Amino acid sequence: METLKGRDLLSLADLSADELQELLQLAAQMKAGKVNWRCNKVLGLLFYKASTRTRVSFSVAMYQLGGQVIDLNPNVTQVSRGEPLVDTARVLDRYLDILAVRTFDQKDLQLFADCAKIPVINALSDTEHPCQVLADLLTVQECYGSVKGVTLAYLGDGNNMANSLILGCAMMGMNVRVATPPEYQPDLAIVEQARAIAGDSAQVMLTDDPIAAAKDACVLYTDVWASMGQEDSASSRIPIFQPYQVNQELLSIADKHAIVLHCLPAHRGEEITDEVIEGSQSMVWDQAENRMHAQKALLASLLGADD
Amino acid sequence: METLKGRDLLSLADLSADELQELLQLAAQMKAGKVNWRCNKVLGLLFYKASTRTRVSFSVAMYQLGGQVIDLNPNVTQVSRGEPLVDTARVLDRYLDILAVRTFDQKDLQLFADCAKIPVINALSDTEHPCQVLADLLTVQECYGSVKGVTLAYLGDGNNMANSLILGCAMMGMNVRVATPPEYQPDLAIVEQARAIAGDSAQVMLTDDPIAAAKDACVLYTDVWASMGQEDSASSRIPIFQPYQVNQELLSIADKHAIVLHCLPAHRGEEITDEVIEGSQSMVWDQAENRMHAQKALLASLLGADD
Amino acid sequence: METLKGRDLLSLADLSADELQELLQLAAQMKAGKVNWRCNKVLGLLFYKASTRTRVSFSVAMYQLGGQVIDLNPNVTQVSRGEPLVDTARVLDRYLDILAVRTFDQKDLQLFADCAKIPVINALSDTEHPCQVLADLLTVQECYGSVKGVTLAYLGDGNNMANSLILGCAMMGMNVRVATPPEYQPDLAIVEQARAIAGDSAQVMLTDDPIAAAKDACVLYTDVWASMGQEDSASSRIPIFQPYQVNQELLSIADKHAIVLHCLPAHRGEEITDEVIEGSQSMVWDQAENRMHAQKALLASLLGADD
Repeated sequence: METLKGRDLLSLADLSADELQELLQLAAQMKAGKVNWRCNKVLGLLFYKASTRTRVSFSVAMYQLGGQVIDLNPNVTQVSRGEPLVDTARVLDRYLDILAVRTFDQKDLQLFADCAKIPVINALSDTEHPCQVLADLLTVQECYGSVKGVTLAYLGDGNNMANSLILGCAMMGMNVRVATPPEYQPDLAIVEQARAIAGDSAQVMLTDDPIAAAKDACVLYTDVWASMGQEDSASSRIPIFQPYQVNQELLSIADKHAIVLHCLPAHRGEEITDEVIEGSQSMVWDQAENRMHAQKALLASLLGADD
Repeated sequence: METLKGRDLLSLADLSADELQELLQLAAQMKAGKVNWRCNKVLGLLFYKASTRTRVSFSVAMYQLGGQVIDLNPNVTQVSRGEPLVDTARVLDRYLDILAVRTFDQKDLQLFADCAKIPVINALSDTEHPCQVLADLLTVQECYGSVKGVTLAYLGDGNNMANSLILGCAMMGMNVRVATPPEYQPDLAIVEQARAIAGDSAQVMLTDDPIAAAKDACVLYTDVWASMGQEDSASSRIPIFQPYQVNQELLSIADKHAIVLHCLPAHRGEEITDEVIEGSQSMVWDQAENRMHAQKALLASLLGADD
Repeated sequence: METLKGRDLLSLADLSADELQELLQLAAQMKAGKVNWRCNKVLGLLFYKASTRTRVSFSVAMYQLGGQVIDLNPNVTQVSRGEPLVDTARVLDRYLDILAVRTFDQKDLQLFADCAKIPVINALSDTEHPCQVLADLLTVQECYGSVKGVTLAYLGDGNNMANSLILGCAMMGMNVRVATPPEYQPDLAIVEQARAIAGDSAQVMLTDDPIAAAKDACVLYTDVWASMGQEDSASSRIPIFQPYQVNQELLSIADKHAIVLHCLPAHRGEEITDEVIEGSQSMVWDQAENRMHAQKALLASLLGADD
């Protein structure tokens, strides 16, 4: 996709709706083996938080494109010696062709993008997780043919996943219902942004009622109740979030063909039951695989690869 | 080797004797540069224990095949955040083409193999170390032309190395004598299994007498007295294992052309003397190099690579 | 460069002046895209100290040559289990094609080079940092057309950078002035060696007067005042080194076209001011990029790559 060449992806809203649609189309074609783009480039992975899926899926995607990957674990770089982020960014910009950053503060991502000419990808921040949503939308598209008009219910913590899903659904004309405890709503600025994007074409609903969210929904989506860095409050969160558990009972009020998504890792018995995640409506393993296909399309587009 | 395509190697006994023989043949041909198989695949290395030889030899083997490697250090993956092994296995299965696992419990390997469709290789467990034995047999084959009928004496701790050597020798028609302190015998179930495999074609002898084992043997083999995870008992083990040290005196009662093997790392002055490991009968550096050639043949066979 | 094939680079003085000149020429041609050497080899990086620039620049250089890289972090290798360095070196020699080592003691580098037949590169020791000086000289060459006769002033700690710069300048016919506090002079044996190399063609001056060093100099060069491992004394060093800070005032007495170099990471407000490192005479980002080009030429030459 020529229009994405050289750009950053810090928020899903950095894409236009058309670009997002094209990106999903490209990912589907790559997965089907219909396009085989090649690029002889080097991707840097700078991850300040643990990662399995993100690291491996980005690496394999890059390898399949014919490129290389450097794992910039901050523990073994000068980053841990207190070098200013801006200096690290400017130097990496001279060596690498593209950089994926997993960090806490969205501002650090912006700083990297401002200092580096190469494309910078948000591989998870406290505010957004756009690459996961690319995979999620690809999975919904595979199950429903088209994502437009599909209703997705997100249940649990109004975290970075919730924020990016809200944006992604709004951009694609999907209705999104987010059910969280009142104190754990998603970022309201992002909700406003999503509503402005969606206009009349889709609904963005916030609620504290899991039943209202799940009723007749086509997709039930959940995530861990305590994200990385919040482990200390994990046990105190359990009673608060218990009503938002995705279990067989909740699934039974969704559309009868509803699919269940989870970005993993899953805590069975907390945000999702073993029965549901292992059940026939769970698409979580396809969803995980789609990280690789979606990110391959993203990397190829930002790098301007072609066949 | 078509028959190995898609299979796992958790125990050396997962191979038939013919398949093991063919694998060694292929490794020898690869080392001689007579076959140059290529495969554009991705190997994952999931190592729960430290490793130099295994990690580097697997990586170079894969690179020489034209493939790629992802180092899945559990310290930097979600594995350390308590994700169930089965979820990790199922996700990695979607991204990778083949997986080598170094772990403690053989059961975890089995679990990985059960959950993943891709080939899973035992890169060391508490029970077996089949990849090392592939290299060992290749080294014996290089020195003696054929391994059949050669007598190997293993001296020291009846650990995973001893177990896998017993199986490997039995499968190849080599006589194996294992001399250990009475409390440190190898796994008796594996000894039974090896005797059943060997039938009348080879002897499997257990003894606590290092002299009886080494007498006229063609190969003297030893390993550290305290394996990874047993470092606490290392000093208390020394007097118990001292009689099993591979030193010049013991070597002098072996066959006069006997070779000395050690899977490394070596603790000079403990299980082997500096004089012997640095002596003219020591083949340990060739043996270490053979890890790479043997594993290259294994990877190519499990992946179904060809030229 | 045929003459370098198979050799080690432990000290810059392992090269002849002609070889160093040819290496810089090759690096410049590679940077300009005029030569595209390829080699299908594997580089090992064994780093006992943290690194961003060195690790990434070596990796990308090797990838651009078509090769592969294995990161041998001692924390995840047997090195940390007390295996003798000589055993590690001999085993790695069997697997790898070339090895870059970042360590403390120059003697350890020599030991690696003695045990391994493959080329060993000093990727930073307490005594020298030759790869950085390759990049520095390339940067000077880019700015001045030729390095011969150019005067470089180094200000600050007489550390490994100072030692290697002294050698590099002497070899290339550049005048080098090293201004340090009296207790922090560079290695005097290296100064003698450099003077012998330079003969009448260049001056090697030691002084404790930063003004005398910087006056009319074409290059001002500085490095952190406390290197890795000296962090404890960092605050006590500040008043001692303050007069050697590269600031606008010092820069104003240098040649009016003088360039400023720093091997990074920089501690703004200590050895260099923010104003100078961000100023128009600062070439530090080009200098950082040149690590990659210089090391690519070095790797290709030691490996005997060609087009």
